Order: sequence, then structure tokens, then C-alpha cells
Amino acid sequence: MQIKDVAQALGGRLDGDGAIEVSRVVHPAKAELPSDLALAMNADAVASLAGSKAQAVVVSTDHPVPAGSLPAVIAVSDARIALAKLTAIFDPGPAHDGGIHPTAVIAPDAKLSEGVNVGAHAVIGALSRVGAGTTIMPHVTVGAAVKIGARGLLHCGARIGDRTIIGDRVIIHPNAVIGSDGFSFAPDLMSATTYTANVKVSRVHSLGNVSLGDDVEVGACSTIDRATIESTCIGSGTKIDNHVHIGHNVTIGDGCIVCGKVGISGSVTIGRRVRIAGGVGIGDHLSIGDEAVIGAGSAVVTNIPAGAFVSGYPAVPHPRAIEQYVYIGRLKKMYQKLDDVASRVDALEQTNKE
Amino acid sequence: MQIKDVAQALGGRLDGDGAIEVSRVVHPAKAELPSDLALAMNADAVASLAGSKAQAVVVSTDHPVPAGSLPAVIAVSDARIALAKLTAIFDPGPAHDGGIHPTAVIAPDAKLSEGVNVGAHAVIGALSRVGAGTTIMPHVTVGAAVKIGARGLLHCGARIGDRTIIGDRVIIHPNAVIGSDGFSFAPDLMSATTYTANVKVSRVHSLGNVSLGDDVEVGACSTIDRATIESTCIGSGTKIDNHVHIGHNVTIGDGCIVCGKVGISGSVTIGRRVRIAGGVGIGDHLSIGDEAVIGAGSAVVTNIPAGAFVSGYPAVPHPRAIEQYVYIGRLKKMYQKLDDVASRVDALEQTNKE
Amino acid sequence: MQIKDVAQALGGRLDGDGAIEVSRVVHPAKAELPSDLALAMNADAVASLAGSKAQAVVVSTDHPVPAGSLPAVIAVSDARIALAKLTAIFDPGPAHDGGIHPTAVIAPDAKLSEGVNVGAHAVIGALSRVGAGTTIMPHVTVGAAVKIGARGLLHCGARIGDRTIIGDRVIIHPNAVIGSDGFSFAPDLMSATTYTANVKVSRVHSLGNVSLGDDVEVGACSTIDRATIESTCIGSGTKIDNHVHIGHNVTIGDGCIVCGKVGISGSVTIGRRVRIAGGVGIGDHLSIGDEAVIGAGSAVVTNIPAGAFVSGYPAVPHPRAIEQYVYIGRLKKMYQKLDDVASRVDALEQTNKE
Repeated sequence: MQIKDVAQALGGRLDGDGAIEVSRVVHPAKAELPSDLALAMNADAVASLAGSKAQAVVVSTDHPVPAGSLPAVIAVSDARIALAKLTAIFDPGPAHDGGIHPTAVIAPDAKLSEGVNVGAHAVIGALSRVGAGTTIMPHVTVGAAVKIGARGLLHCGARIGDRTIIGDRVIIHPNAVIGSDGFSFAPDLMSATTYTANVKVSRVHSLGNVSLGDDVEVGACSTIDRATIESTCIGSGTKIDNHVHIGHNVTIGDGCIVCGKVGISGSVTIGRRVRIAGGVGIGDHLSIGDEAVIGAGSAVVTNIPAGAFVSGYPAVPHPRAIEQYVYIGRLKKMYQKLDDVASRVDALEQTNKE
Repeated sequence: MQIKDVAQALGGRLDGDGAIEVSRVVHPAKAELPSDLALAMNADAVASLAGSKAQAVVVSTDHPVPAGSLPAVIAVSDARIALAKLTAIFDPGPAHDGGIHPTAVIAPDAKLSEGVNVGAHAVIGALSRVGAGTTIMPHVTVGAAVKIGARGLLHCGARIGDRTIIGDRVIIHPNAVIGSDGFSFAPDLMSATTYTANVKVSRVHSLGNVSLGDDVEVGACSTIDRATIESTCIGSGTKIDNHVHIGHNVTIGDGCIVCGKVGISGSVTIGRRVRIAGGVGIGDHLSIGDEAVIGAGSAVVTNIPAGAFVSGYPAVPHPRAIEQYVYIGRLKKMYQKLDDVASRVDALEQTNKE
Repeated sequence: MQIKDVAQALGGRLDGDGAIEVSRVVHPAKAELPSDLALAMNADAVASLAGSKAQAVVVSTDHPVPAGSLPAVIAVSDARIALAKLTAIFDPGPAHDGGIHPTAVIAPDAKLSEGVNVGAHAVIGALSRVGAGTTIMPHVTVGAAVKIGARGLLHCGARIGDRTIIGDRVIIHPNAVIGSDGFSFAPDLMSATTYTANVKVSRVHSLGNVSLGDDVEVGACSTIDRATIESTCIGSGTKIDNHVHIGHNVTIGDGCIVCGKVGISGSVTIGRRVRIAGGVGIGDHLSIGDEAVIGAGSAVVTNIPAGAFVSGYPAVPHPRAIEQYVYIGRLKKMYQKLDDVASRVDALEQTNKE
């Protein structure tokens, strides 16, 4: 790719030789080949440009470099958006041979559309359908009656349960599990007040499925349980990080961001564009409104209204959580002050008596 | 299945035509076929019965429907127990072809009892035994000298370490790991007070195994480490949700409920029918008594007596935890009150001086 | 192995018959064969020696046993170090047939050094290299251009992403994922103050890799995301437990201990010999100094200096965290005391008025 094409794709300003060919993006200090494109969006990286072997660099207008520092300089005004575009251009995707590997086990009645790739030792169950251009990496298990959309990517070791429905351009990361059984028993032991040897515990089976919209990502080792009767639903554009657990009967709206190690209990309803930071836990049957934000490590035990920003254990409005930490930090001084005031009241009472 | 048989299995009262054939359980609004059995246990679902295409419905006596609303109505008195029975009746289990798939790799000296199914690309190690009627789904790894009981179900991607012992009717969910190495080093670095470059760290190897009783479930992506010398033991009937970590040398009694994302450190001893809500962490070498309950997100740092209900970070008796949150919520007002009292004492002292 | 060789390996004092052959380490009560070597390092196990069928035992000088209790007694002065040595001697490692299993799928241009074992259904990608004596268990996926050092062990279901670099003697536990994509989007939604339907979310692709030093362990179901441009680095000798999530661009120094269920957000920098207890969460872009200790369940939201011991939610110096819990526990009494003082001030003011 020529540097002038990169500049155009990023919407950046190009100074220098637009004909330079680039094939890889690297930190300035790691450039080895003339075709390495340096990325120097912060002060540190800009400082490394001095000794860099790169012929071309992408910089941010926030950290400009002198004209002529390198044979070609692309300057972009929004560094993060440019990073997204640049990494998309140079991402080769996971390496695979293409086509259907001879060791893949594909049910005779499964239906693969044009351009589907299936890796070594992958398994695709009866009556499942895979959309055009979707790549299934080695060791993936796709159950029966699964529908997967077009241009998707299922990384190695992903497990897709029976009847799962997956939209277009969905990415499932390694060892994620979609459509596992819900954790549900009768009686509902977590609500019951007593649980003795006399209580017979029965399993509530999961007859429903999981449905993922378009452009969803599910992180490595994350799990989404299928619904009891209906569907556990993840809306289009929702991005889920690693080690996230989503319980049965949960509904998550479009465009949500769910960071690593979040646990969402059964039957929770989450609106659109909700942002949930790392390590959050959400109690069952709760409801989180559109565009709410939940701070890292919070334990949500109440419904959260739309647009709210909550945090803490248990979660409260964020300014209140901060206020509480501040006051907790001052407790020692308060105890001392209270002791002091009490002593002075003792003295006043003694004076009054005398 | 005829609706009169469903009514009998659920112990419910049948009004209407018992001869209607049903083959699937659905939400009233999702019924498409005459053989769809609607489930309407709450007010919402009952409201959807009006336009439903279902011929038969199961309702709760808590949310009764007028006689004749549908050609057949089954009314049950305990909705959750009925849900367990109903879902068990209609659960087809995970789809598989049955038999031993030709791509499965089974050690010549492994012993499979009658009716064992082994899916595509599964691996079963030397000297392992699998009980009658157990199903091993695709991509499962069973190590060497493993004993698995009858009528079990090992979902795809489950990893069963060498020497693991598994009872009857055990369900291991996708990508769970049973019998991984314990996390154990010498010296015990988490207790040591100093750790410098001079400290040589050695690995304590795990020579023991994991033993699961009958009717145990282990959730997707959960891990149970094997013991150093003896067995990490999980009692019969204990149900473990997704993303649970159980350390080496742990003993858990019968009938426990361990919800999602719980972490149990090494050498913890847990009694019978203990309920542990989501996200709980339990410190090493602690002991939790029979029928104790641990609230969601708690950090357990002390032994918990039998029957106790604890919660919080760190966990204390639940009423005390609630009390603490209440008082923490009032801290701002208390600081103001203390300031006010202190000012009034200033004034009193001033008056006395004058 | 003869008991005298065991004694020598442990650096322990041997009383009795050094020629006894031992082949397995067991709890005294579990000894069945004359070749079972009992381990009795604590009072409980010593008490079980009475009825044990073992001919030989390893005890700690902290819990000595009478001379002649058993035909052979090895006494060691540091029980934990001896346990590490003893378990290393008797660990057979995971069972495998050795060699390259015929069902393994190995790219023609992958390069396996001498003594490499590859298990059933494992997959090794193009241009990858595996060092001498390394064992790859069944169902492992190694991507393309991966470099794995010598004498390593990749347990079943481990996923190694393209371009990962792994040192010597590294152990990857079952279903761990090394080199998954980072969770990174533009704009940076977790920092942004508004996120509406008008915001276009773009993916920042991960072009970098993961680099693990020598003697690293990565626990079952743990995940390490690769860097955006450079490398997510884990230093030599660092041990990572199960269910740990390490985000993209993270750097961890040598000799760290990362316990179960820890979550480390993107771009965190961690020094050498840092100890992180179970369940800790660390916010993005933070820095943790050498030899710092982070207590269990803590939420780290600030940089932590070298040598510090912090804990709590949010994490503060440990003595302050303890102090806060103590004061929080006394809040009810403090409220009562404040009420009492206020009433007495009321009374004093009333007296002054009169």
C-alpha cells in the first residue's frame, strides 16, 4: 500500500513522498524495514522517531513533528479514530488456509454459503447454516440448527449451542461459549429462606436459545446462557469483553459496552448504549436504563434509571459513592473530634454542677 | 405427547381437551403451530394468551385464566416446580448423532459401557472408564485413568484431567476444566512478608485428583484444580455455575449452590447445602458451615458458622452489613451534626468563660 | 526410587531403612501399598500415622514423630520447600503417548525441534516453531508464526494466537487463551462523557502480539490479549492462576504472582515480584511498582508505589483499609454517642438560658 492511500483512508494531511510503500505498522523504535510505517501518536513515540529506520510515520496534530523529519509524515487530527482506521487497514485477520479443511466434521444437511472457511477439526451440527464469507477457525463447535450470518469470525475453541442465532459480522473470540444451559433450579434456592436436607432440588432445563444481533463481539472465555423458554438477546453493535458471564433470559440492547469480568445474573434487562466497566456484578431480574454507566467493580442491587452513572458496592449514584469514600477516609479524625467534644461536654457539665 | 399426560406429569388440574398433542413449550405470543404448548405463569404471559395460536396452556393458580380461554388449560399450584418438570419433559438434550464418532480418539484400554456416545474429535485417555449411557460431546478431552459414572453429559470442550473421578448423572458444561494443576508455590508467597530477588520460587506439583459426587453440575468455563496429594472433593447434588474457580484441596459438601463468578481459594472446607451467591471470593484455608448463605459479591475472610447469612466486603453477618451501608449513607449528615455540636460547645465554653 | 534417594533430594534426615522402594506420595490414611510414601507434615496427618500401611513417611521437624514409628522416617526442616521438591519428584506430568499423534494437523512449514510431543487433534499453524522437549497436549491450537521455547507444556484446549512468543519451560493450562484481540474501540467509550445513538463506534484492531518470558505459568481459562501495535509482555518466572484476564498493552515484570480471578485492564504496567491476591481488579493505564502487594478483592484505581501493600475497594494502604473497616464497624455506636452528646449540649444550653 502506498503512503498516499493510507493518508487518504485516515483523512490525514500528507507531507512528503506519497509513493512510499508500507506493509506493517510499528512503534518507531521497532522499525526494521523501509516498508515499516511508524505510529507516533504520543510524546514518547515521537521522541523515538529520531533514530527510527521507518520512512513514513503517522502522527497526531496534538504531537506534531517538524516537516521533513521523515520522508513521509501523515498528520491526523483525531488520533483514536485514526488508530481504528489504520489498524483495520493493516489487520490480516487470523491466519488460515481458507476453504474447508478435510478434518472438519460438517453435518451433511448443514448449509455453508459462498466463501465460508472452516478450519481443522471444527464441527458443524445438523441443519446449521453459515452465511457468506464467514470464517470458522479450528476446534470450533457449532451445534445443531444454528444460524450464523455473513462475514462473521468464530475463533478457535468457540462453542455455539443448538439453535443459537447469530447476525452478520459477528466476532466470537477463542473459547467463548454461546448457548450454554441456564443456572436455574426449583425451588429458587437463592431467594428461599430455608434450605434443608428435606428440600428436593430439581433442574429447570433451558429450552430456549441465544440470539446475537449484527456486529456483536463476544470476548475470550465469555459465556452466554440460553433462555428457559425464549431467547437471551444481545443487541446489534454490543461489544462484550473477556470473562463476561451473561445469565439466562437476559436482554441487552444495541450498542452496549460490557468490559472484562462482568457478571450479569439471570433475567436482567439492559437498555441501549449502556456502558458497564470491568468486574461489575448485576443482580437478577434488575433493569438498567438506556445510556446508563456503571463504574468498575460495582455491585448493582437495584434498578438503574436511564442516563444514570452509578458505582460502588452496593452501587449508588457516582457522586454519592465518591462522597462516601471521602467521608470514610475521614472517620478516624471524626472519632477523635467526637471524643474531644464529649470530653468538653463532660467538663461543662462538671462546671455547671460545681 | 398428549396434554393429559403433561397435566399428570405436572400434577396440575386439566380443563379441556386432554387429547391435544403438544411437542414444544413456547411463550403464548410465540406459538405458531397447533402443537405448541403455551406457558403463561405470570401476568404478562397471561395477557398474551388473548391472541395466541396455542391450543393448550400451562398456567399458575396464582394467575388463573378463565375456563375455556383455550381448548386446554393446565393449572399448577407451584409454578417453579412445574417449570422444572415441564422443561425436563421437553428438553431434547444437546443434539448428537449417537454412537462413537469415527474421528474420536479413544485409548485401546479405555472402557466404555453400554450406550456411551462419543462425539467428533473427542479424546479419551488410557485406562479411563465411562459409565453406561453417558454422552461425551465433540471436542471433549478425557485424560488417563479417569472414572466417569453413568448417564452423565460432558459438553463440548470440557477438559477432564488425569485420575478425575466423576459420579453418576453429572453434567459438565462447555469449556469447563476439571483437574487442572493447583496454584501452589514454595515459599507460600501470598503469606510471606518479604519477596525479593533472592527468593527462589519452586512449584508445588499437584499429585492428587478431583472427585465429583453424583448429580453434580459444573458450569461453562469453570475450573476445579486437583489436590496436592489427596482429592479436591465436590459433594453429590452440588450445582456450580459458570466462571467459578475452585482451588486445590477444597472440599465442598452435598447439595451446595455456587453461583457464577465465585472464587474459592485453596484448602477451603465448605459444608452441606451452603448457598454462595454470584461473585463471592473466599480466602484460603477457611471453613464455611452447613447451610450458611453468602451474599453476592462478598469477600469472605473469616470462618463462617453453620446457618449464618453473611455479606459484604469483608463479609459480616448480613444485618450488620445492611446496618453499615445505612450508616455509611448518613455520614455526610453526621459530619454536619458533629460540626454543629462542636460549635455549640465552643459557644457554651465561651459563655462559661465570660 | 529408594527412600534414601528421596531423603537426599529433600535434604532431610533419614531414620531407618533407606532401601525401601517408594513410588507414590499419599496421606498416611490412604496408604495401601508398601511402596506408598506417606506425607505427614501437620498434626492431623501425624496422628493418622498410627494405623497407616505406609513403610516410609516424610515429616516436618515442627511435628516430629517418635523414632521407629515407621520403618523409615525422613524429617525435613522446611516443610513447604520439601513439599515442592517431593511433588516434583513424583509428578508424572499429564499422561500422553509421546510423539506426534497422526490426527494432529501441523502446517508443512512449522518446525518442531527434537523430542516435541503433539497430542491428538492438536493444530499447529504456518511457520510456527516449537522448542525441544515441549509437549503439546490434545486439542491445543497454535496459530501461525508462533515461537514456543524448549521443555514447555501446553495443556489441552490452550489457544495460542498468531505471532505469540513463548519462552522456555512455560506451562499453559487447559483452555487458556494467549493472544486474543484487545477490547479497544474508538472513541474510547469508557472515558467519553457522552455516548448517544449518533456516536459511531469503530474497532481498534490488535496488530501486536503477546510475549511470555521463561518459566511462566498461565492458569486454566485465563486470557491474555495481544497489544495494539507492540507486545503484551509477561516477565520470566511470573505465575498466573486460573480465570485471570490481562488486557492489551499490559506489561508485567519478572517473578510476579497473579492469583485467581484477577482482572488487569489495558495498558497497565506492573513491576517485578508484585503479588496480586485473588479477585483484584486494576484500572487501565495504571502503574504498580516493584514488590508491591495487592490484597484480595481490591479495586486498584491509582498508581501503587514500589513496596506498598494496599487493599480495599478502592485500594488504599492496607493499615488504612483495616482502620476504615474497624471504624465502619463502630458507626452505630458513634451515632448513638453523637446523639447522646447532642442531647447533653441541648441540656447545657437550656440550663444556661434559665
